[in-house]
Amino acid sequence: MGCGSVVIDMKHIEIINGPNLNLTGRREPEVYGSTTMEEYVEGLRARFPEVEITYYQSNVEGELIDRIQQVVRVPAAGNTSIDGLIVNLGGYSHTSVALRDALLAVPAPKVEVHLSNIFAREEYRHHSLITSACRGMVCGLGLQGYELALRALV
Amino acid sequence: MGCGSVVIDMKHIEIINGPNLNLTGRREPEVYGSTTMEEYVEGLRARFPEVEITYYQSNVEGELIDRIQQVVRVPAAGNTSIDGLIVNLGGYSHTSVALRDALLAVPAPKVEVHLSNIFAREEYRHHSLITSACRGMVCGLGLQGYELALRALV
Amino acid sequence: MGCGSVVIDMKHIEIINGPNLNLTGRREPEVYGSTTMEEYVEGLRARFPEVEITYYQSNVEGELIDRIQQVVRVPAAGNTSIDGLIVNLGGYSHTSVALRDALLAVPAPKVEVHLSNIFAREEYRHHSLITSACRGMVCGLGLQGYELALRALV
Amino acid sequence: MGCGSVVIDMKHIEIINGPNLNLTGRREPEVYGSTTMEEYVEGLRARFPEVEITYYQSNVEGELIDRIQQVVRVPAAGNTSIDGLIVNLGGYSHTSVALRDALLAVPAPKVEVHLSNIFAREEYRHHSLITSACRGMVCGLGLQGYELALRALV
Amino acid sequence: MGCGSVVIDMKHIEIINGPNLNLTGRREPEVYGSTTMEEYVEGLRARFPEVEITYYQSNVEGELIDRIQQVVRVPAAGNTSIDGLIVNLGGYSHTSVALRDALLAVPAPKVEVHLSNIFAREEYRHHSLITSACRGMVCGLGLQGYELALRALV
Amino acid sequence: MGCGSVVIDMKHIEIINGPNLNLTGRREPEVYGSTTMEEYVEGLRARFPEVEITYYQSNVEGELIDRIQQVVRVPAAGNTSIDGLIVNLGGYSHTSVALRDALLAVPAPKVEVHLSNIFAREEYRHHSLITSACRGMVCGLGLQGYELALRALV
Amino acid sequence: MGCGSVVIDMKHIEIINGPNLNLTGRREPEVYGSTTMEEYVEGLRARFPEVEITYYQSNVEGELIDRIQQVVRVPAAGNTSIDGLIVNLGGYSHTSVALRDALLAVPAPKVEVHLSNIFAREEYRHHSLITSACRGMVCGLGLQGYELALRALV
Amino acid sequence: MGCGSVVIDMKHIEIINGPNLNLTGRREPEVYGSTTMEEYVEGLRARFPEVEITYYQSNVEGELIDRIQQVVRVPAAGNTSIDGLIVNLGGYSHTSVALRDALLAVPAPKVEVHLSNIFAREEYRHHSLITSACRGMVCGLGLQGYELALRALV
Amino acid sequence: MGCGSVVIDMKHIEIINGPNLNLTGRREPEVYGSTTMEEYVEGLRARFPEVEITYYQSNVEGELIDRIQQVVRVPAAGNTSIDGLIVNLGGYSHTSVALRDALLAVPAPKVEVHLSNIFAREEYRHHSLITSACRGMVCGLGLQGYELALRALV
Amino acid sequence: MGCGSVVIDMKHIEIINGPNLNLTGRREPEVYGSTTMEEYVEGLRARFPEVEITYYQSNVEGELIDRIQQVVRVPAAGNTSIDGLIVNLGGYSHTSVALRDALLAVPAPKVEVHLSNIFAREEYRHHSLITSACRGMVCGLGLQGYELALRALV
Amino acid sequence: MGCGSVVIDMKHIEIINGPNLNLTGRREPEVYGSTTMEEYVEGLRARFPEVEITYYQSNVEGELIDRIQQVVRVPAAGNTSIDGLIVNLGGYSHTSVALRDALLAVPAPKVEVHLSNIFAREEYRHHSLITSACRGMVCGLGLQGYELALRALV
Amino acid sequence: MGCGSVVIDMKHIEIINGPNLNLTGRREPEVYGSTTMEEYVEGLRARFPEVEITYYQSNVEGELIDRIQQVVRVPAAGNTSIDGLIVNLGGYSHTSVALRDALLAVPAPKVEVHLSNIFAREEYRHHSLITSACRGMVCGLGLQGYELALRALV
Repeated sequence: MGCGSVVIDMKHIEIINGPNLNLTGRREPEVYGSTTMEEYVEGLRARFPEVEITYYQSNVEGELIDRIQQVVRVPAAGNTSIDGLIVNLGGYSHTSVALRDALLAVPAPKVEVHLSNIFAREEYRHHSLITSACRGMVCGLGLQGYELALRALV
Repeated sequence: MGCGSVVIDMKHIEIINGPNLNLTGRREPEVYGSTTMEEYVEGLRARFPEVEITYYQSNVEGELIDRIQQVVRVPAAGNTSIDGLIVNLGGYSHTSVALRDALLAVPAPKVEVHLSNIFAREEYRHHSLITSACRGMVCGLGLQGYELALRALV
Repeated sequence: MGCGSVVIDMKHIEIINGPNLNLTGRREPEVYGSTTMEEYVEGLRARFPEVEITYYQSNVEGELIDRIQQVVRVPAAGNTSIDGLIVNLGGYSHTSVALRDALLAVPAPKVEVHLSNIFAREEYRHHSLITSACRGMVCGLGLQGYELALRALV
Repeated sequence: MGCGSVVIDMKHIEIINGPNLNLTGRREPEVYGSTTMEEYVEGLRARFPEVEITYYQSNVEGELIDRIQQVVRVPAAGNTSIDGLIVNLGGYSHTSVALRDALLAVPAPKVEVHLSNIFAREEYRHHSLITSACRGMVCGLGLQGYELALRALV
Repeated sequence: MGCGSVVIDMKHIEIINGPNLNLTGRREPEVYGSTTMEEYVEGLRARFPEVEITYYQSNVEGELIDRIQQVVRVPAAGNTSIDGLIVNLGGYSHTSVALRDALLAVPAPKVEVHLSNIFAREEYRHHSLITSACRGMVCGLGLQGYELALRALV
Repeated sequence: MGCGSVVIDMKHIEIINGPNLNLTGRREPEVYGSTTMEEYVEGLRARFPEVEITYYQSNVEGELIDRIQQVVRVPAAGNTSIDGLIVNLGGYSHTSVALRDALLAVPAPKVEVHLSNIFAREEYRHHSLITSACRGMVCGLGLQGYELALRALV
Repeated sequence: MGCGSVVIDMKHIEIINGPNLNLTGRREPEVYGSTTMEEYVEGLRARFPEVEITYYQSNVEGELIDRIQQVVRVPAAGNTSIDGLIVNLGGYSHTSVALRDALLAVPAPKVEVHLSNIFAREEYRHHSLITSACRGMVCGLGLQGYELALRALV
Repeated sequence: MGCGSVVIDMKHIEIINGPNLNLTGRREPEVYGSTTMEEYVEGLRARFPEVEITYYQSNVEGELIDRIQQVVRVPAAGNTSIDGLIVNLGGYSHTSVALRDALLAVPAPKVEVHLSNIFAREEYRHHSLITSACRGMVCGLGLQGYELALRALV
Repeated sequence: MGCGSVVIDMKHIEIINGPNLNLTGRREPEVYGSTTMEEYVEGLRARFPEVEITYYQSNVEGELIDRIQQVVRVPAAGNTSIDGLIVNLGGYSHTSVALRDALLAVPAPKVEVHLSNIFAREEYRHHSLITSACRGMVCGLGLQGYELALRALV
Repeated sequence: MGCGSVVIDMKHIEIINGPNLNLTGRREPEVYGSTTMEEYVEGLRARFPEVEITYYQSNVEGELIDRIQQVVRVPAAGNTSIDGLIVNLGGYSHTSVALRDALLAVPAPKVEVHLSNIFAREEYRHHSLITSACRGMVCGLGLQGYELALRALV
Repeated sequence: MGCGSVVIDMKHIEIINGPNLNLTGRREPEVYGSTTMEEYVEGLRARFPEVEITYYQSNVEGELIDRIQQVVRVPAAGNTSIDGLIVNLGGYSHTSVALRDALLAVPAPKVEVHLSNIFAREEYRHHSLITSACRGMVCGLGLQGYELALRALV
Repeated sequence: MGCGSVVIDMKHIEIINGPNLNLTGRREPEVYGSTTMEEYVEGLRARFPEVEITYYQSNVEGELIDRIQQVVRVPAAGNTSIDGLIVNLGGYSHTSVALRDALLAVPAPKVEVHLSNIFAREEYRHHSLITSACRGMVCGLGLQGYELALRALV
């Protein structure tokens, strides 16, 4: 993460994806397209060469918390630092007070992304514990949502 | 609206703002900045010359419905047509079944925008009748939300 | 409205339609048919020559209230008077205390009509603030609902 | 039921009434009038000679289900068939999942009737499990409601 | 019921019991004792010779409604008439709008009885649709509750 | 309280009334009659000479608790003891956890009384915190409710 | 029921079906198959010759209660006795306190069956008053559910 | 509004009334009296000559918002300015987030008035979205409420 | 209270304050000012010499009930009588059914006062059991609320 | 209270107990032990000689408020002052807004104590209006809870 | 998993158990018996030699998701494939949207199992997010539930 | 854990901390102080040399369950055993049925600790699934809460 970036003020944005989002591009490709998250992030890096974009995914709630905590502590580590966090915590968005707490401890700006329009789905998806811990939210716009969130942060 | 555009496949996006959003740039400038909606839309037009951007605002719920209905009927009118709708219906978002009905009758893609993070405010703002009638939603990212919605539509 | 009707005891029924009902016959014709409200009211007048039938539609909640208030005051105006009100207030039915208040002030009998079966649709449509301010309600029977309401009133 | 009707395309409509509706015309005549259901159905038959109208009443929830099931199976029986069902299930309307299930199995169009305006009465009467299993509903218009439902079906 | 009572002003009280109450005295005798309803009613008759006490039980909701309707119509039948109704409708007490409607049509005073303290049991037993249709209620006092209700009525 | 009763096995029942019940017989006499609680208790004593009946009333929640606690401690005091408690805690019935706690500490059997049918009144009166702390309840039967409760206890 | 079984310890299981389940195999055969309950029970008997399997169905809530009560009383009758009850009470499952009470009085083990997955249907079907009165429940596995319940009981 | 007031520190109070309040004095005069709002405001002006009192009424929610926004912008206009707002938004009080937003943008002190005691009426009138956007509220005291609100502001 | 007032038709208004209101003027003076209730009532008496103003405060719910009952009984006592009651029952307003009952028994007109805007505070303060037992309510206007209530009563 | 303490900086902690807690050590000794509050406080004083510990109990809600108010006013009185409050308000904890208000006016740190684990008891005990008015809470640890609260305060 | 099965059409069923189910047979053996899951699965394999049965357990929500995802991808891997999934997700059943999402992505049929009757336990166990993502559910029948689910799948 | 403790009856208490509590002393030091959990536990060990104190933290819900299960099984392992558990499960406290289940299987006494007063924070923190699975709870008293819990256990 962030190794050897020459340009001193290059921005660093981390994308953190939660459960089942490792299946993106493989599950229901007729709905979501067949681009995987890895391919999509590569595309983002090509379009935004001035931004260092790191990517992390886990299905384990506690590992997501671990990662968010590491991101918090990065600033002291050297000349690159986290300038923003893009989070799509999938199904944990609706239930995890612990992830909300972890995000509340991150001073950098955060934007929440959801691939689908969570308000046009089942009722239990209408409420996200994550949104009010972030600056804003983008939903329903597919993978493009990550790019829009990135633009809002840089 | 849409008068004399030479380029045949120029896209047409309409932005419709609801109650109190005519005060943008004048109310609480220390929070929202001092750019008015009109100035902001001018900037959008400059940045997106390939898109015809029209703008409408009203404080009257029924006039917003009238406008949405007119937009619906435009397609038959000539060589320009509505390719997308960006709506920020302010306080009516939380209460208006009638505006939801009007939007459901619009076949073009729609994106909802809110300047503030409605999920970090009072509970009665957490629910929007509009969101599930749109393709997606952007909130909490200020005026930039309109540009992001525009990008999602073009 | 109702000017110059020669037959003294000709009954006068007003139909008041709310938001989006001006699209009737144009929106989803495969579901609702392609008869417009204006055409339908003409047909009603032909079938009920002994009744004076007036029709009003607006998308603006307050204009609907204005109209209902005018109807209230008609009785003192001459030899024709309102003998009944048929109201279909569309999306406002579920949210408008103000329209309910306006109707409560109308002494004439009122019948509420809904084209669709509102109880077979989304939950927020199951509750109407208007119904208990009327004598009765007809729903789910399409445009014929207006005729049935008319029969109940004359 | 349906015995010996010569005219081949005579329509057959069944009216099914639920608990306490056998008291119609005897209970609170100052409110509902003194016409009994039997007398009213006779009047209907006189006014609609082109329709075969059958009538059934029971206070027992399961007998009402039995009857609805019998009506379902009639089509295969001969040259008369059920063309529509008019149901007023009284107090069972608000509580009976079993009656709702029985009605859902009836392919013929159904219209629900309530003599009184159930939305202007106690809160537990505002919800009917029956309505969304029918095409439409008429309430608050007294015995005339049956005639209006009949017109909607023929 | 009420056959051959010589004394003209002998009072007639009917006890109507609902589902499962035919098991009284046989089910959980260590809790409720081993007296059956029939034996208890005999005891009541012995203690209140000046009252004609009739008893009816059914597990069928609609038959209970039938019975209540018959009791309503008794007054016109002769020199004995119903002077009060004691009802214990068991599990139907918590769910039956239809039985409530039937009782509301009874002009005679009614008292509801429950053997057990329904408020010290499961939450769904705390609400009775029957109570507010009666003059009063006695609960938790076992079979003696019927005697107390009787005293309140005579 | 209970001083000098010669007969050893004379029963002692205490009636405890809560707020506003000191107005009984003076407030709305056309509804409740004009008998005061004091007069009524006198009548009870006359009718039940074999029972020692004591009476206490207070508008102060804490004084009612004090009284109930005193009753609890009586058993150790001598040859008379409390054999039962009849409580009508008026408006405190619906709100007082503290009174409920006090009653739960009383080993003697308790019966709750309400003069009116609390289930036929405002919704906030339908729930009593007291009932499930007692053996049973009598409501809606006026002052006679105390006598019925007394019979249940002796 | 259970007459003349030679083998002394042959088990006796009763299957009790509620409203509309008499239509099984006739209604929506493309979903549920075309096997009727009667045919299915015959098949069960063939596969489980060591079990006496009786079957009862009614659309009437009270008759179901009657039947359950009869089953309860069988034990004293002779050398065969009920060793288990399989109940599918259809639409009454969600509303009937009375049936729940009847089942609670049955000492034999009970298993609830539902043909469809009631938790994947309308919300009012998610709650069954019957389940917690039984040992367990099988749902969503079609007619096979009865066999599975039978295996659990024998 | 506020034109040509000679005395420099004359206070300016605006009264804004919402839907159906134009009927005051004409609707149910036996309850509210027959004084119209216009006459009442005249009386106020006579009793408070040192205050400039302006009055506005509309049935249209959006026009009320327009008016409140104009009042907000007045301060910069000259030597008179709004020193307080008295609002009675009628039926919109219970439903309008948009009006609440408009009021929140008014820096001047505001007092809400309701002619009737909204807490002694239907439950949906017990909640006002307006109250917490104002300094205080007066209700149930009829037209005098406006005078009391005026006294609180001057 | 009210001793020796010579002028016969001098009005008598009682102000009754509940828990913690004895701290007025001492607690948070920067918010509420430093005027005590006693000083404020003195000021009221000076401004309204034609009214006899009595004042009572207690922290004990039952003593407040006692006081209200005494006020009720005054009318019969002599030539002065209670012409109105101003009540601010503090925290008991939100919980006390017993105080509500006491007030309902007072025939004189009553106005409720709250110093702060209870609707702009915690949710549990938004509901007052007292308001609908009074003619009207004034809140959020500080000590002046008492004067406004007084004006409404005299 | 606090008279004559020589050591200037001796801390003063007041313990205030609410309804039914005077029965501690006498009610259900097998559960709570047989130590009375008075004995327990004596033990505390012995173990914490450097702290002045005062104790107050009442069953009357208003007297508890009186006491808390007196404690508030002590600071100005001399060289001893309240350094902390330990409150166990029993059943009033769940219902008393008035006690909450009184505590909010106490500037000294407060700790709430409950003998039992209120979250393992009835649902209505799970919510305490008192907790959020205190610094912290200790529950379920019996009488030792007071000692722990004391340690937290000194 | 699935290594070296010779018979080509041997079915492959996976059992996935969630948190605390590794304690089966060790915790509360008097209730659940002392058979461990491993022993039970061995028994299943012996009874169903024609089925390949694999078993997985984890206390970590995300590891359960990982496993389910792996099962999803197996089909492309060779001649054995998953023909069904039996899941008992323990405490996660009631809270995990993420596990529900993972299961929704599994095309193979799934059956949910619970050892105990979750509807006869605490209320928060009555709702399972998993059930409607499966074909059916078996609960309350102990370890036998796995065998019944297996029968339903093969 | 617990290796080589010479004194046979030395007590063993385990502290288990959940998500984000590894940040204690680093996050918001101005609020919580800058003592880390590790330092604090060291201090505890110094103050309680007679107790063996072990400490475990994880952000992963399932690892916390693993740990609790290991603690359960320790008793059989040797001469030291767990005498008590102190748990602060952070954000999982409000959502984890699985952790609750794990704790319910621990026979040793447990005390829940929260650093902050969870009842003075957001509503979703007011409910803990953990509390009723423990003997008691300490909240709002910072790190000292662990010491108080320890005292309660030893």
